[in-house]
Amino acid sequence: MWQPPQLPSLAGQLEQRGLALDPKQLSTLTSWPLDAVVSLGFCTASFVSPDGLIVTNHHCGYSALQYNSTPQKNLINDGFLARAKGDELPADPTQRVYVTEQISDVTDRINAALKPEMGGYARFVAIDQAKKRLVQACEQPGYRCDVYTFSEGYDYQLIRQKELRDIRLVYAPPLSIGNYGGDVDNFMWPRHTGDFSFLRAYVAKDGSSASYSKGNVPYRPRHWLTVNPKGVRAGDFVMAAGYPWRTDRYRLADELQSTIDLQYPAKVSAYKDLVAMLDTAGKTHPDVGVKYADFIANLNNAMKYYQGNLDGLARSNALAVKRSQEAALDQWLAQQKPGGALDGAALQAGVANLRQLVDAQLKLSDRDLVLYIMQFNGLFHASYQIVRLAQEKQKPNLAREDGFQKRDEISLLGEQQRLDRRFDPGVDQQMLVYDLQRYVKLPSDQRLPALDRWLDGASDEAALTRRVATLYAGTRLTDTTARVAWLSATPAQIHASNDTWIELMRDLMPDLLACEHEEKTFEGNESAARSGYMAALVAFNASHGLPVYHDANKSLRVTFGTVQGYKPRDAVEYVPFTTADGIVQKDTRVEPFNAPPAELSAIRIKAFDGFASAENGMLPVDFLANLDITGGNSGSPTLDRNGQLVGLAFDGDWEGVSSSWLFNPDETRSIHVDVRYMLWVMHHLDHADNLLDEMQVTTMH
Amino acid sequence: MWQPPQLPSLAGQLEQRGLALDPKQLSTLTSWPLDAVVSLGFCTASFVSPDGLIVTNHHCGYSALQYNSTPQKNLINDGFLARAKGDELPADPTQRVYVTEQISDVTDRINAALKPEMGGYARFVAIDQAKKRLVQACEQPGYRCDVYTFSEGYDYQLIRQKELRDIRLVYAPPLSIGNYGGDVDNFMWPRHTGDFSFLRAYVAKDGSSASYSKGNVPYRPRHWLTVNPKGVRAGDFVMAAGYPWRTDRYRLADELQSTIDLQYPAKVSAYKDLVAMLDTAGKTHPDVGVKYADFIANLNNAMKYYQGNLDGLARSNALAVKRSQEAALDQWLAQQKPGGALDGAALQAGVANLRQLVDAQLKLSDRDLVLYIMQFNGLFHASYQIVRLAQEKQKPNLAREDGFQKRDEISLLGEQQRLDRRFDPGVDQQMLVYDLQRYVKLPSDQRLPALDRWLDGASDEAALTRRVATLYAGTRLTDTTARVAWLSATPAQIHASNDTWIELMRDLMPDLLACEHEEKTFEGNESAARSGYMAALVAFNASHGLPVYHDANKSLRVTFGTVQGYKPRDAVEYVPFTTADGIVQKDTRVEPFNAPPAELSAIRIKAFDGFASAENGMLPVDFLANLDITGGNSGSPTLDRNGQLVGLAFDGDWEGVSSSWLFNPDETRSIHVDVRYMLWVMHHLDHADNLLDEMQVTTMH
Repeated sequence: MWQPPQLPSLAGQLEQRGLALDPKQLSTLTSWPLDAVVSLGFCTASFVSPDGLIVTNHHCGYSALQYNSTPQKNLINDGFLARAKGDELPADPTQRVYVTEQISDVTDRINAALKPEMGGYARFVAIDQAKKRLVQACEQPGYRCDVYTFSEGYDYQLIRQKELRDIRLVYAPPLSIGNYGGDVDNFMWPRHTGDFSFLRAYVAKDGSSASYSKGNVPYRPRHWLTVNPKGVRAGDFVMAAGYPWRTDRYRLADELQSTIDLQYPAKVSAYKDLVAMLDTAGKTHPDVGVKYADFIANLNNAMKYYQGNLDGLARSNALAVKRSQEAALDQWLAQQKPGGALDGAALQAGVANLRQLVDAQLKLSDRDLVLYIMQFNGLFHASYQIVRLAQEKQKPNLAREDGFQKRDEISLLGEQQRLDRRFDPGVDQQMLVYDLQRYVKLPSDQRLPALDRWLDGASDEAALTRRVATLYAGTRLTDTTARVAWLSATPAQIHASNDTWIELMRDLMPDLLACEHEEKTFEGNESAARSGYMAALVAFNASHGLPVYHDANKSLRVTFGTVQGYKPRDAVEYVPFTTADGIVQKDTRVEPFNAPPAELSAIRIKAFDGFASAENGMLPVDFLANLDITGGNSGSPTLDRNGQLVGLAFDGDWEGVSSSWLFNPDETRSIHVDVRYMLWVMHHLDHADNLLDEMQVTTMH
Repeated sequence: MWQPPQLPSLAGQLEQRGLALDPKQLSTLTSWPLDAVVSLGFCTASFVSPDGLIVTNHHCGYSALQYNSTPQKNLINDGFLARAKGDELPADPTQRVYVTEQISDVTDRINAALKPEMGGYARFVAIDQAKKRLVQACEQPGYRCDVYTFSEGYDYQLIRQKELRDIRLVYAPPLSIGNYGGDVDNFMWPRHTGDFSFLRAYVAKDGSSASYSKGNVPYRPRHWLTVNPKGVRAGDFVMAAGYPWRTDRYRLADELQSTIDLQYPAKVSAYKDLVAMLDTAGKTHPDVGVKYADFIANLNNAMKYYQGNLDGLARSNALAVKRSQEAALDQWLAQQKPGGALDGAALQAGVANLRQLVDAQLKLSDRDLVLYIMQFNGLFHASYQIVRLAQEKQKPNLAREDGFQKRDEISLLGEQQRLDRRFDPGVDQQMLVYDLQRYVKLPSDQRLPALDRWLDGASDEAALTRRVATLYAGTRLTDTTARVAWLSATPAQIHASNDTWIELMRDLMPDLLACEHEEKTFEGNESAARSGYMAALVAFNASHGLPVYHDANKSLRVTFGTVQGYKPRDAVEYVPFTTADGIVQKDTRVEPFNAPPAELSAIRIKAFDGFASAENGMLPVDFLANLDITGGNSGSPTLDRNGQLVGLAFDGDWEGVSSSWLFNPDETRSIHVDVRYMLWVMHHLDHADNLLDEMQVTTMH
């Protein structure tokens, strides 16, 4: 997960693995090919034509399909194709495309705001304020700026992105291709998902960023990716650029151990309880089932993810590896003599400091889980936003809490407007009762005084249920209009309210803010300690001639490697390409393995229109590579040695799911949809030749 | 599945695949190495020392372990090792080892008994009598003779086997090695089962076959196999010799279609019902659960087998393949001009005749299933044997029905003595009621008149249950002593009995004999028609220069090929060797994946004592080859190009389970335990160095 400017220092490796471009070409964000790579906020995408055509994963373009679907015309299921630009459909108005235009190192400017004598909280606030000032100075209409923190404070970068706001849906295959295999195949190989779709960015006629308007014109990117319709072969060089969210590769062994021993098992167990509760509720009330279907799916996915992590971490003996890595660092630091180039003792003290901090924080993990689950609660979350926003509005915009600034108000409003679709008061009460049952088991020093007062001694399920029932009986927050109106409330109105949820939240807020203060204090201290730890690691690695990449933090990264399979277990090998024949083999005619009949017939007669592999006559569907990707990389363009598009990254393998903690090169693989499958589906099944023409792909049939 | 004399005609293929021996060496049963291969009646085994030491599968030596186990000393779980011959334990007295000594073609002698004008039944009887005469003339004390029918009458061979009766248990690893993976891994790859055990054959001091006696001495085989402790590698030549029971490669497409459309689905559905019934009974009465555990396991295995067949046959499009093969044969036959070397018209008429016969027989498949399930019934089976034996005893021995001759009486007795262990009157009634519910749905022309009379109009479950209850209330056959005594009954005693089961069976017997007569008539006709069909096939193949092997029929066959993996599905490859590391990966500490802790530790520290593969330092456990084996081949020695022992065949792969109908070379693989794993377990874990010495295996540690 290299930052682009690091790539020239890896020129030897890049060349050895087969890159045909000058690595310098990859080091600047404003040159081809990296300036064709954009962020959707939650996914990665890329320009593939001079007219702002964008390719990304099907699951990244999903909301645009959802937004345009009606019961009569279900674009999610059926797919969609605009045969001309005029037929393209506006995506959800919150849909954005961010084009990174500038990155500046602002570490010195942040650090200038810090003083050695600052305590944790002061440090947190100073950093926060310095960041906000930099963002404010940078942002202007049509641009978004953010300060990205690398390794918790080792490095800060101010990133300026053009924010494109008129995004339109151009093309998506039907769900039975775009999400083939569904949740069953999630994380799995062999995979046969056609996880791709196309959007287009529009701007005002003067080229400036603008919201949807019929008169807008296609955005003209500086550069775009061209397609290599021949794809790649096993062993070929590939790279992917994208915006990975988060990895935890530099956490301490103590943190990993706590995750393995306590946090993940606790989450798995709590989510299992919640899923059982929601399943039961859904069976008796089908409408409730519909409302919570997504939430249940998310909980199930999270459970699968945590369990996969636990299995993978056990299999790779990750804790022992971590401990031995830390021991090696400690030993090396101990050898750095005082007065040498590196102050080993100071670095050692920094590491020890981090360990202490972390160990203290880990003690709060039960309480943190209770508070985390509480946020699943619709009215807890709504009342929190209402009360907090009223408070924050009293401050100058810059001093407001992240998420409650002026620029956030629109999304706070949207959240309240949409809550209805995924909220049932009965289930909300049940979930709160469940969480309170966990809460009352917390040690007394982790309790929230206001919540204890409100509970008034209730501790068993029956008593908690009665208490919670009064809370829901006396609130109007179950009503969307009421909730939306409350978002404009003043502190005085909050103070005067006798809405039971508002009352509770009003009393609870000081306790929640105290927790937040504690957390910020930790973060302030952590930013010093982790950056010290990272400095030690960087020095240690440099002494072995190895560069260090930072943990993923949503900033643009490049990962490179080769197309290759892996051995998931003894005597089993996964080869790196699936083929269309595998769809026929896998198909059951039942979701999620119900490919369109036309596709099955075409595969049976091998009507591959020249897109099949020249080696074996099979049509590749998905492929594996050893690229280092994670959530946020979805939709990342996969580029060949010449920087041409050969696929889209969309998932990682099950055996590599714990790679966010420790990258295991034997078992961690990225999963990509093959450009040949994309082109074949577009041409043969969906007749999207207008887009193939736009991408200048010549069909051979 | 070649007969040994066919092998010289395959010399080119054998040499090309790597056989280093002269194929003529493999054509005679009385020379090394084939005369070292023996039958256990139900499994294959082989001599591996001049002192009659025998190696076979763990599951083939299972009854010897069971027979010697007590609640205090569970040899099945713990394994067993005799460190000296004096410590070897006598196996179950019914255990036999058969050494094939002579094979003579007796086709002419059988055919001499047939006359063209004979109807089906007369033909059946004539063949049966001719066979029995040949057997009687051949058998003498210590020898067993049988006439083996090839392709239902194309060919007959008289096979004379030395019958060794004093068989002793020498060594078996613990169940957690010998049956590692258990039913979960049955048919599956990757596999890590150590499916091997050792027996020894003893004879009287004068070398003659004798029952167990302390004074007996080890049998001295003419030849024995030597071990190649280096094993084989991927791509190496291997062959296996053994006694496969049955294949159906030459059935007609109509028979396959009926199997796919009707018979297998009907069996799967009936067995599912029975398993559900038995599971319920076992839950309320745990002792009943124990009694029927084996039966349930057998039903489950059979269901898995039938379903696997249905899946495999669908996947390989077997019916279409069969139909096109038959069409090609028909077309070729139509081209054989009358008066030519082959009478195409006569062969065509023979094929048409077979089709007619088969189609008529297939119409009875519902009734046949009812009668088949009826035999699962303990008291139906017992009363049948009692009544039938009394009748058969009235005939000269040679005229008696197979299974009711003098030589069979001991096993009939044994069956009645052992019935208790797997019989519960309540469950027996339930099963009968279930089967009668199927019976009353049969069309009237398939009913048994005596059974209808007995049912007296009962047709719904309640009425059938009442009727069956009276049957069990009035019988003493639930008592072992009574059952055994009844085995000696005369027809007059049977006639005079008022035991309800004896009465019912007495009345039913004429109907059952009528069914048997029908079946024999079919078989008599079939023997002419199938041998004609086979003659057509042989001629057709010969015209393409291809030899034909006959369907498996329990006679000794040799199969050869190479060590190789396969592709079970798109993008997945199974490599041909599993390794000991895979045991550690797979192990859950819970049966059937609970390897002995000592084994896990030894694998973790790679204490492989020189038995690991020289290529990669891994200890091979099981391997795959493309040999054509089936039930009865279990325990077959796997030989390398020099005829040295490199493993034991013990299973086939799941994807190849339908190969009994159609051998699919892409997916059908034999599974073998690797000799290196056997030797390592024996040496390192069980310290059976006395046996390694006896086999002249030098350990390198």
